[in-house]
Amino acid sequence: MPMIKVELLKGRTVEQKREFAEVITRETARILKCRPEVVDIVFQDVEPHDWANAGKLNSDKT
Amino acid sequence: MPMIKVELLKGRTVEQKREFAEVITRETARILKCRPEVVDIVFQDVEPHDWANAGKLNSDKT
Amino acid sequence: MPMIKVELLKGRTVEQKREFAEVITRETARILKCRPEVVDIVFQDVEPHDWANAGKLNSDKT
Amino acid sequence: MPMIKVELLKGRTVEQKREFAEVITRETARILKCRPEVVDIVFQDVEPHDWANAGKLNSDKT
Amino acid sequence: MPMIKVELLKGRTVEQKREFAEVITRETARILKCRPEVVDIVFQDVEPHDWANAGKLNSDKT
Amino acid sequence: MPMIKVELLKGRTVEQKREFAEVITRETARILKCRPEVVDIVFQDVEPHDWANAGKLNSDKT
Repeated sequence: MPMIKVELLKGRTVEQKREFAEVITRETARILKCRPEVVDIVFQDVEPHDWANAGKLNSDKT
Repeated sequence: MPMIKVELLKGRTVEQKREFAEVITRETARILKCRPEVVDIVFQDVEPHDWANAGKLNSDKT
Repeated sequence: MPMIKVELLKGRTVEQKREFAEVITRETARILKCRPEVVDIVFQDVEPHDWANAGKLNSDKT
Repeated sequence: MPMIKVELLKGRTVEQKREFAEVITRETARILKCRPEVVDIVFQDVEPHDWANAGKLNSDKT
Repeated sequence: MPMIKVELLKGRTVEQKREFAEVITRETARILKCRPEVVDIVFQDVEPHDWANAGKLNSDKT
Repeated sequence: MPMIKVELLKGRTVEQKREFAEVITRETARILKCRPEVVDIVFQDVEPHDWANAGKLNSDKT
């Protein structure tokens, strides 16, 4: 029932997402006291030209 | 004004999305008592390696 | 695994949400060909002063 | 700390997103009284067959 | 059709949201070349204990 | 830059959110190889009558 959505800059590997899913689900279940089966995690890759901080697209930063 | 966002595993056809949009808009308008014109639906396809349940990526399930 | 998020103006009753959850889950399972058990629906009530259309807050419309 | 998410139909150019990021960050900082550094903007392009209004996919409108 | 969601720390006034809605809708319509009528903005107030940066809840920062 | 959004049933304490923020930020920084300063976490409490699974509101489950 915790639904965890992760927006992150494109470029992370499936191995990183796999480890993230394992570790974060385990810690979420432990801290929020729920079964791992009810923890959903969705990753959303974001292109550098689709994320801006301080008014500047990431693709324009050097 | 209801804004409906649907995250779903990649693989559904445009025909399924078309039927979903028709039916869900009609039922939403009927139940929530609003005009169909104010109902927006956005689909977001999610890759199997971007959705984890119980700590395991969908792409790793067999 | 379909995760459905519904943003709607505050004021709908629990009865309306109950019927919405029943009907939309049944139709989602039928159209997207999945088990009802994997359909999650989350409602998010929005105050009229927190929703603007055409540059005008809903609370300012008459 | 304001986090601004923009869902828009696919087809806008990077130049439009760049100007949007600059202008909207400046106005956000001015109106909400925060530093530009804490303003994040994420664009999410949506395909015409993934956005429905009034029960009809955008890709089906003529 | 642009749908703009703004997550911000609780505490901004309705006046600030009103000005934000007016200005951001006008600039969005101008830059993305769409009619103001299709621009929706939703504000979501976040409590200081519901937003963490760098591992620390905002309510714990001094 | 990872932006983590956590939707969870109402009822968790600030202490649980504090520990969650600390641990998840540390693990996110380690696995995704980023500085803790760029990790944002937002919690969104959901009322039991606003979350349905399998067509049934959580507030209706016994």
